[in-house]
Amino acid sequence: MLNGFTCDITEVNLTTGYEMYNWAKELFPLNRSLTGDGVRDTLAFIKSHIPELQIHNVPSGTRAFDWEVPMEWNIRDAYIEDSEGHKIIDFKENNLHVVGYSLPINKTVSRNELDSYLTSLPDQPTAIPYVTSYYKPISGFCISDKKREQLGPGPFKLYIDSELSNGHMTYGEVFIGGETSEEVLLSTYICHPSMANNELSGPVVAIALIKHLKSLPKRKYSYRVLFTVETIGSIYFISRNLESLKRNIVAGWVLTCIGDNRAYSYVPSRQSDSYTNMISKRVLEDLREPYLEYSWLDRGSDERQYCSPGVDLPIGSLMRSKYGEYPEYHTSLDDMSVISPEGLFGGFKLLVSAIEILETNAFYENTLCCEPQLGKRGLYPNTSTKSSGLEVRDQMNVISYLDGKNSLLGIANICGVSYAYIRTLANKLLAAELIREVVK
Amino acid sequence: MLNGFTCDITEVNLTTGYEMYNWAKELFPLNRSLTGDGVRDTLAFIKSHIPELQIHNVPSGTRAFDWEVPMEWNIRDAYIEDSEGHKIIDFKENNLHVVGYSLPINKTVSRNELDSYLTSLPDQPTAIPYVTSYYKPISGFCISDKKREQLGPGPFKLYIDSELSNGHMTYGEVFIGGETSEEVLLSTYICHPSMANNELSGPVVAIALIKHLKSLPKRKYSYRVLFTVETIGSIYFISRNLESLKRNIVAGWVLTCIGDNRAYSYVPSRQSDSYTNMISKRVLEDLREPYLEYSWLDRGSDERQYCSPGVDLPIGSLMRSKYGEYPEYHTSLDDMSVISPEGLFGGFKLLVSAIEILETNAFYENTLCCEPQLGKRGLYPNTSTKSSGLEVRDQMNVISYLDGKNSLLGIANICGVSYAYIRTLANKLLAAELIREVVK
Amino acid sequence: MLNGFTCDITEVNLTTGYEMYNWAKELFPLNRSLTGDGVRDTLAFIKSHIPELQIHNVPSGTRAFDWEVPMEWNIRDAYIEDSEGHKIIDFKENNLHVVGYSLPINKTVSRNELDSYLTSLPDQPTAIPYVTSYYKPISGFCISDKKREQLGPGPFKLYIDSELSNGHMTYGEVFIGGETSEEVLLSTYICHPSMANNELSGPVVAIALIKHLKSLPKRKYSYRVLFTVETIGSIYFISRNLESLKRNIVAGWVLTCIGDNRAYSYVPSRQSDSYTNMISKRVLEDLREPYLEYSWLDRGSDERQYCSPGVDLPIGSLMRSKYGEYPEYHTSLDDMSVISPEGLFGGFKLLVSAIEILETNAFYENTLCCEPQLGKRGLYPNTSTKSSGLEVRDQMNVISYLDGKNSLLGIANICGVSYAYIRTLANKLLAAELIREVVK
Repeated sequence: MLNGFTCDITEVNLTTGYEMYNWAKELFPLNRSLTGDGVRDTLAFIKSHIPELQIHNVPSGTRAFDWEVPMEWNIRDAYIEDSEGHKIIDFKENNLHVVGYSLPINKTVSRNELDSYLTSLPDQPTAIPYVTSYYKPISGFCISDKKREQLGPGPFKLYIDSELSNGHMTYGEVFIGGETSEEVLLSTYICHPSMANNELSGPVVAIALIKHLKSLPKRKYSYRVLFTVETIGSIYFISRNLESLKRNIVAGWVLTCIGDNRAYSYVPSRQSDSYTNMISKRVLEDLREPYLEYSWLDRGSDERQYCSPGVDLPIGSLMRSKYGEYPEYHTSLDDMSVISPEGLFGGFKLLVSAIEILETNAFYENTLCCEPQLGKRGLYPNTSTKSSGLEVRDQMNVISYLDGKNSLLGIANICGVSYAYIRTLANKLLAAELIREVVK
Repeated sequence: MLNGFTCDITEVNLTTGYEMYNWAKELFPLNRSLTGDGVRDTLAFIKSHIPELQIHNVPSGTRAFDWEVPMEWNIRDAYIEDSEGHKIIDFKENNLHVVGYSLPINKTVSRNELDSYLTSLPDQPTAIPYVTSYYKPISGFCISDKKREQLGPGPFKLYIDSELSNGHMTYGEVFIGGETSEEVLLSTYICHPSMANNELSGPVVAIALIKHLKSLPKRKYSYRVLFTVETIGSIYFISRNLESLKRNIVAGWVLTCIGDNRAYSYVPSRQSDSYTNMISKRVLEDLREPYLEYSWLDRGSDERQYCSPGVDLPIGSLMRSKYGEYPEYHTSLDDMSVISPEGLFGGFKLLVSAIEILETNAFYENTLCCEPQLGKRGLYPNTSTKSSGLEVRDQMNVISYLDGKNSLLGIANICGVSYAYIRTLANKLLAAELIREVVK
Repeated sequence: MLNGFTCDITEVNLTTGYEMYNWAKELFPLNRSLTGDGVRDTLAFIKSHIPELQIHNVPSGTRAFDWEVPMEWNIRDAYIEDSEGHKIIDFKENNLHVVGYSLPINKTVSRNELDSYLTSLPDQPTAIPYVTSYYKPISGFCISDKKREQLGPGPFKLYIDSELSNGHMTYGEVFIGGETSEEVLLSTYICHPSMANNELSGPVVAIALIKHLKSLPKRKYSYRVLFTVETIGSIYFISRNLESLKRNIVAGWVLTCIGDNRAYSYVPSRQSDSYTNMISKRVLEDLREPYLEYSWLDRGSDERQYCSPGVDLPIGSLMRSKYGEYPEYHTSLDDMSVISPEGLFGGFKLLVSAIEILETNAFYENTLCCEPQLGKRGLYPNTSTKSSGLEVRDQMNVISYLDGKNSLLGIANICGVSYAYIRTLANKLLAAELIREVVK
């Protein structure tokens, strides 16, 4: 057994996809934001699946580098009523109707005045846009452009029963120990209200990955999984753990937008030659289907913080349809129909493959000088025919490049074949004592 | 203000283009050559605009590396007369009619014999070719092929009243001091008779650049501008200044063929990774129009000498239509209609942009750890909408790459945007004290 | 004279092509294998042309790294007879009819049972395949699929009069001394029965190259040429000479499949930046016709052993149609019609060019500072015309790049012109004492 470890021990199957989809369905209605009860309820759900989850509460006003933890925001009710007392839009129906961090309001306004409170998307007339205003105090509503066009003459009652107060920013952390203190970081966020691909796909894939990691008989690396809020959440975490992160993190990914059925994609870490980038590219290549390769210039989620000046960790993103690049992004259209059990399962498997590489990749060198005689070890056809030369070619390539300077991952890249295949070939050579691991 | 300097202080406008064109018109009729009164008259004109011009006289026979300053050549009159006393070609009408450095002659020849004295271009029947014979003593005439075809039966009188004698090679030098002893070299030549793009565009752009450089409130670099003759002129200059050139020159350009309206182009310096090459490429990219990128193998003017064995300075050429690559090159067709105020002004602006990069480019690093909060500094939209993420992307890219290892020019290259844009973004960050210069 | 040596002294002409073709014709019928009299007879033939050939005999059972020299195999007769006593296939007619290393057999079998003894190629119905079984003891026959289809009901008599016994593996070695102990290795094999391109082209080109090398007035390098058997032969040789090979070999090629008229090709050595690879690429480029560039992943002959783990010599292959890549490969169709005098001569010339580079390539630097005046040395036209600038461009490029860091081969690569042309230009500069050799 290569490296005393085979990921294949843990079988993964589509059941996990259905589980993830159901978790997302349960989490969908919660009104998440940077802070507040929606985040707490989301973490409580996660803890019901992952008892090891540690929940952290950071008081409003706490400093983190250049930033400050914001006030806590909670909202009970919100709507716009027309002159006849009909609720035109209702927060209880869709929590995207209220601009995130809206201040309380209770006011009657004219049709004209109403417009300054509304955001809609003329290009996507049926979509309620997702808008927040964390740092500028306003009250605002989001509405589909279709409904906006149909508004009567008014007046309209604006009502938001929200509260911005000293409280806490809440986040969750799971640590799964391994044989070494070297760590892999997986970070996902729980700060968007009812949206599926650009919110819930990340946390549910993270839950499934934790279960998967726990099921492994042993782990070379330790794994740290964060369920936090974008930007201020990751900045706070980095500010309190910078030295240990810089010392321990060998690779890591932000988990976001990983649940639809469209093409896979990745955003590399800032350090272009990072282990994370090498692995990301390999697992995508090994899918044998087209994928999208973005550049660091296209980043936009928390890899921004993890790779920021003075931090610069090897953290990228493995995704399906990237934020900002699919039509439903940041609107009410990003609902449960955008993601699927199959879509989530594909994203999950991609990370399982990345973990398999992390756990099994190593440097090897030949134990013998010159080419070994594979025939007497049952690794070479004894009868030479026109085609038999080709059959062992890949095996010979592994032997040729295992010079102590190439890892299995490096050889998969050189040969343009899958990591799993190279590992199978290397396992045979290891069993035959033709190669030995080189500790770097 | 970035770096205590903004080039924008000096506004440049098309008036400069018209000035340059008029200077070229005045200089056009002078009979320049390697030596002689045409060169002196050209330098006198330049000095009338640039009083700082120092004029050097180098005696014939002076050694310079493998070379020797040639005898001085002057010519008063030259023509070919037919049997009826009509001047078929006349030096006074067009100084290209005489092969440069022709010895005196006064001789009557047959129609047949005449041919050995004539050069014409059958492919360009209306053009008088430009021919010189600096190192082989001959007497020769150049004529349009059309006129040659119409020559009568003869005999013909050949007359050249020229003089090759001990004298001087003359060249001009302007030094404009800056804050450091590091220098930028601009070199142009004044050794071709009446041709416009491949002669006068260089000197007139050089005059305008000197005026521009003098108008700057301060300069980081010193600038040295040479008005010399090709090959022997630059070789002589290098031979007398080699050590200081190697110590001080950080970048530089030969100014030639920079006044027509056609596509821009450049020849890189021999050292492929020179600062000159990086800047040349950037200013051409920033034009946002197609340009021609030649290789060092395509060189042909004085960058040959400046990058020669044992010299190897970072000197390239920024041009419009390169010598040898446009139909009028080295013929009488390269007249004042080939260049234009707009063409000259475009070339001038290109060098102004290169100087702006030289004067303002620097290495910076972030002053804060992790991503700064741009919002509280007015550098980030407070309300997050679907598109606002894109608006600050470029600003964030500058922050991301200002790690002390990248200069502004380097970041413009990474991001594929203009240097001026990156500098504007960096200026805002500098004003907000989010970045600081790193002295290398 | 450059480097005191010109390859051009030895004229090569197509006569050599006809000679090589005739040698191949004589060697064609011999029944070569890993061992046995066919190999001995082949070596005897070679020795008749190259008296310096040293013949080595290695006893069966001798260990070489992970391998063991096999028993010696000899065969006197073999056939299959039908029920009427007609020989359906006969070893004496074509030695490919017997699987290499077949054990003796004398047995009558049914039509059904016969099939387990036969190999044929349904895709190439007229071809007798080439099959060996060196390490698994069997008796087997090869037959054209067409003949197999026509077989009657049987029974059939199988007869092989062969012998597997303690004996020797035989190989030949030629050493041609040079001025230094640095060596070039040429390795070819003599272990295939009657096949032309993938067998005899290699040895006959090797014979011609030895004659060529001996005819040179002097040699910078020593040359070692091996006539051995694939795999075990080269492994044995390496095992007994590893240290001196690693110390002395600067470049080398396996000679195989080098006699047909189709496109040239090469397999690089494992070390991608080897001198061998640089030279291979240059000689192929200099042919000015399309060629095939394989990767190390496509290797398949003894470069496998020469570049194997712990050995890793700079050995590649220069070929015409590569083994495995042409339809006649490893079948009876690879007969004397596949190769030709012209094809063999082309392969020979390719290696002669490679040797010319090896013997003449060197690093040079300019003796003068700045650009030399070529005119006074007769290397530059004295009259400057529109086109004369181009005429000396290549000469100037050689001067420009001969900075002590580039070899002639390196400059040919930079300029994209032939090595021979660069060498001619450098010879002129050397004669004019403008460059001098730099010993690295």
